[in-house]
Amino acid sequence: MTETTWFTGITDAQANHVLVRGYPVQELMGRVSFTDATYLVLMGELPTDRQRMLMDAILVCAVDHSITPPTARTARTVATSRAPLVSSLAAGILSISDLHGGAIEGAMRMMLAVEKDWSAGADLNEAAAAKLEVYRESGTRVPGFGHRVHTDDPRAVRMLALLQENGSESRFAQVALALGRAVEEVLGRRLTFNVDGAIAAVLCELGMPPDLANGFFALARIPGLMAHVYEETVRERPMRTPDFDAARYDGPAERHLPEE
Amino acid sequence: MTETTWFTGITDAQANHVLVRGYPVQELMGRVSFTDATYLVLMGELPTDRQRMLMDAILVCAVDHSITPPTARTARTVATSRAPLVSSLAAGILSISDLHGGAIEGAMRMMLAVEKDWSAGADLNEAAAAKLEVYRESGTRVPGFGHRVHTDDPRAVRMLALLQENGSESRFAQVALALGRAVEEVLGRRLTFNVDGAIAAVLCELGMPPDLANGFFALARIPGLMAHVYEETVRERPMRTPDFDAARYDGPAERHLPEE
Amino acid sequence: MTETTWFTGITDAQANHVLVRGYPVQELMGRVSFTDATYLVLMGELPTDRQRMLMDAILVCAVDHSITPPTARTARTVATSRAPLVSSLAAGILSISDLHGGAIEGAMRMMLAVEKDWSAGADLNEAAAAKLEVYRESGTRVPGFGHRVHTDDPRAVRMLALLQENGSESRFAQVALALGRAVEEVLGRRLTFNVDGAIAAVLCELGMPPDLANGFFALARIPGLMAHVYEETVRERPMRTPDFDAARYDGPAERHLPEE
Amino acid sequence: MTETTWFTGITDAQANHVLVRGYPVQELMGRVSFTDATYLVLMGELPTDRQRMLMDAILVCAVDHSITPPTARTARTVATSRAPLVSSLAAGILSISDLHGGAIEGAMRMMLAVEKDWSAGADLNEAAAAKLEVYRESGTRVPGFGHRVHTDDPRAVRMLALLQENGSESRFAQVALALGRAVEEVLGRRLTFNVDGAIAAVLCELGMPPDLANGFFALARIPGLMAHVYEETVRERPMRTPDFDAARYDGPAERHLPEE
Repeated sequence: MTETTWFTGITDAQANHVLVRGYPVQELMGRVSFTDATYLVLMGELPTDRQRMLMDAILVCAVDHSITPPTARTARTVATSRAPLVSSLAAGILSISDLHGGAIEGAMRMMLAVEKDWSAGADLNEAAAAKLEVYRESGTRVPGFGHRVHTDDPRAVRMLALLQENGSESRFAQVALALGRAVEEVLGRRLTFNVDGAIAAVLCELGMPPDLANGFFALARIPGLMAHVYEETVRERPMRTPDFDAARYDGPAERHLPEE
Repeated sequence: MTETTWFTGITDAQANHVLVRGYPVQELMGRVSFTDATYLVLMGELPTDRQRMLMDAILVCAVDHSITPPTARTARTVATSRAPLVSSLAAGILSISDLHGGAIEGAMRMMLAVEKDWSAGADLNEAAAAKLEVYRESGTRVPGFGHRVHTDDPRAVRMLALLQENGSESRFAQVALALGRAVEEVLGRRLTFNVDGAIAAVLCELGMPPDLANGFFALARIPGLMAHVYEETVRERPMRTPDFDAARYDGPAERHLPEE
Repeated sequence: MTETTWFTGITDAQANHVLVRGYPVQELMGRVSFTDATYLVLMGELPTDRQRMLMDAILVCAVDHSITPPTARTARTVATSRAPLVSSLAAGILSISDLHGGAIEGAMRMMLAVEKDWSAGADLNEAAAAKLEVYRESGTRVPGFGHRVHTDDPRAVRMLALLQENGSESRFAQVALALGRAVEEVLGRRLTFNVDGAIAAVLCELGMPPDLANGFFALARIPGLMAHVYEETVRERPMRTPDFDAARYDGPAERHLPEE
Repeated sequence: MTETTWFTGITDAQANHVLVRGYPVQELMGRVSFTDATYLVLMGELPTDRQRMLMDAILVCAVDHSITPPTARTARTVATSRAPLVSSLAAGILSISDLHGGAIEGAMRMMLAVEKDWSAGADLNEAAAAKLEVYRESGTRVPGFGHRVHTDDPRAVRMLALLQENGSESRFAQVALALGRAVEEVLGRRLTFNVDGAIAAVLCELGMPPDLANGFFALARIPGLMAHVYEETVRERPMRTPDFDAARYDGPAERHLPEE
């Protein structure tokens, strides 16, 4: 062990023997889901059923949003030149920013701060209102509220329900609801609780660090970007200049999962 | 509809109404896994239980390989400068290439060609041997066989078992086994069937297009890269020059899932 | 010196003492141009006046092409999300591919092969025609000829003139002209010698390796991408969906350099 | 002109006719340098001799710094997998961050603020000291001062000399010198004026917007990254794990430009 030795606690990769957070990887295969492995590699332990369900919910809800966001438009633009798939994917996730997806991290920091005050004995509604005052005074956008397209984001509504499913006490669902009330009270107007806010509440509930927020969005969006790049390659001629406002949806009509 | 109108069949994103391949996204949340959503967005339908299990297996098996591959070393190197997380992730997946992960696509094309000959009436072993002759003559590496670190890749063994679980007839497991025999016969030496080959066999079985192969590797590796970037940020000082051969594993000791 | 010692011959970076290919960098500052430094760092020596002029010509000619190519459209799309500038630049150059810019490398390999036959004693026109036959038979596009927009690319015409300026004997200008004649003769139609072909001829003349071709295109395009990202940020609102066919030019009217 | 019409003032790209900021591009070729074209595309006009010299100086000084910075280490790591050159270049510049190169932007904002106070009538030294107090109080690093490797950065010294060459009155050289004195006075210790600070002073002098700062660093570094990727490809075996502390320089011995 020299002075340059350093340590990593994620995976032990030896010849014919790969341990992910201690588990032989071949033992995980066929027994745990990719979501479980994602949770394991990040948190060090396999998730409980509730943790898995919540983690799946945030990844499912962000899997694609057609060609309206910069992620998909960037990936498809690169794909017009038939660059390697991973170049399109990399370019796509590079458009994740403070304005696109990045509100998740901001919303997490806001929620963690409110929850901390609440834990320290403050009234939840007062803590939320105090936090909103800070945004109002500085004139900055409240992360997790409002949306360019959706006035009442069905994904956010569903996420709050999942957080409280089967009577679960969710501290961060309560924080999110308190912030929603405070938005109306302090800013004087109703803003939809959006999908970024909902993902933020779940990530807080799971104990994920805010620094990783954009990574979950990138992870969730990769399959959608793969689908867009593939569709671009198969359906369109190379080097075209797509007008992204001129796209029409021609996929399956609305359909539903079987009743549970 | 103007002359520039074009079509996308993946997602219909309207105000307050997002349909992924026809399903309202809020309905998918809490009911399907991220792996299901990945399969849905790419293939247009939700997977069967077997398809889900196989898809999970390929994503789980590639989730991380410590700092030995360029993906993780690139992501950590970018993270030493504390660039945004998505920049590290993008840089990491840009190192996926013909040499790193890219063998999956090559192995898929090889397996699809052998299976096609087999379907057209050829003897499987002869079709495999004929294909290997092409590699032998051109002196190019046979994709999906051999590994820098592993002489007997436990992930590949497990994947073949999963393909044939519960007596499943897997055409591509049979193709992979025939190619393994042909490698020894034609090249005169044993090469381990590696994880790239195993992922390739599963992707062929699932009917995925070879063009997407590197995308699955990128998707699977994102959580691992997130873990590495986070570990780099939390445990190491900014702007260090890591000697990647000097890393030691200090994570959990080997442990096992509970008996099923 | 351990077994892991390896060598680099580009720059010696010691405390307070940085030697680029042997020259103290502060001595180069104020005395050589960026183009000189580019040539030095790549070729190991400072350029002659002719080499500098040719190198400048290829970098100048590719500096920008408005929002018609994927490079600019990708960079601007990322910039709509106000991601960091380097993310936009990185995404932009990721769209450089076999179809976009990549013809430079293909054209270089074609020209180097023809020049090699010519050097070995073959007739130049016959060597060019023989090479074109290969493209005709395989039905692949001849790199360096034809253009989506330009039927008579003024940049290519100018580049050939510069290669032969002041009576210079340019082997690769001659190769390019022979290939132009062969295109018409073998393919039976006139295709404009394009800017990719012209850059290729100059890079061959300078002795640059074809492996670096896309790098010169990336380098040349970075200032243009910077200008596009800046314009997007200053003139447009965040998160817009630009229709790239709806852009109009409102910059300076045509103007000219003073007579020499 | 529809409601979606928007405007770009950089380049007018018509068939057979490309105007960069009004100049036909073929007319620029052979008559202006790449540095001129860079200045033109960004600022809208060709540079004066002094502006060209300063612009060249900042691009030359940052062209390479061996494998000590993350840019070069990232690009080489990606290159070990033999990914496309532009993937290595893109990954390399993605490591430009607040900590690596990003101090240029911070230093520009600091200098612009001090110069503004000075222009408004404040004493230059007092304005500089007041600014330094802000950094001292918040405990944040003063951008443009201090260096991991260099205690007396010869590139910064040279840059200040160039700014004042031939008796030029350089407001930003004076600002930089005042900040240097204030650093010692307010922080109580001497910190070398570094290359980031020197580039910042020149960019301020040229009137470049701070938002573009990282772009100049990326542009300047691309040739160095190309040289590193090429060297990695030519001298090293694929998929190696380079120990970046084990590299030794074996390029040309120190040499000098001829006397002027």
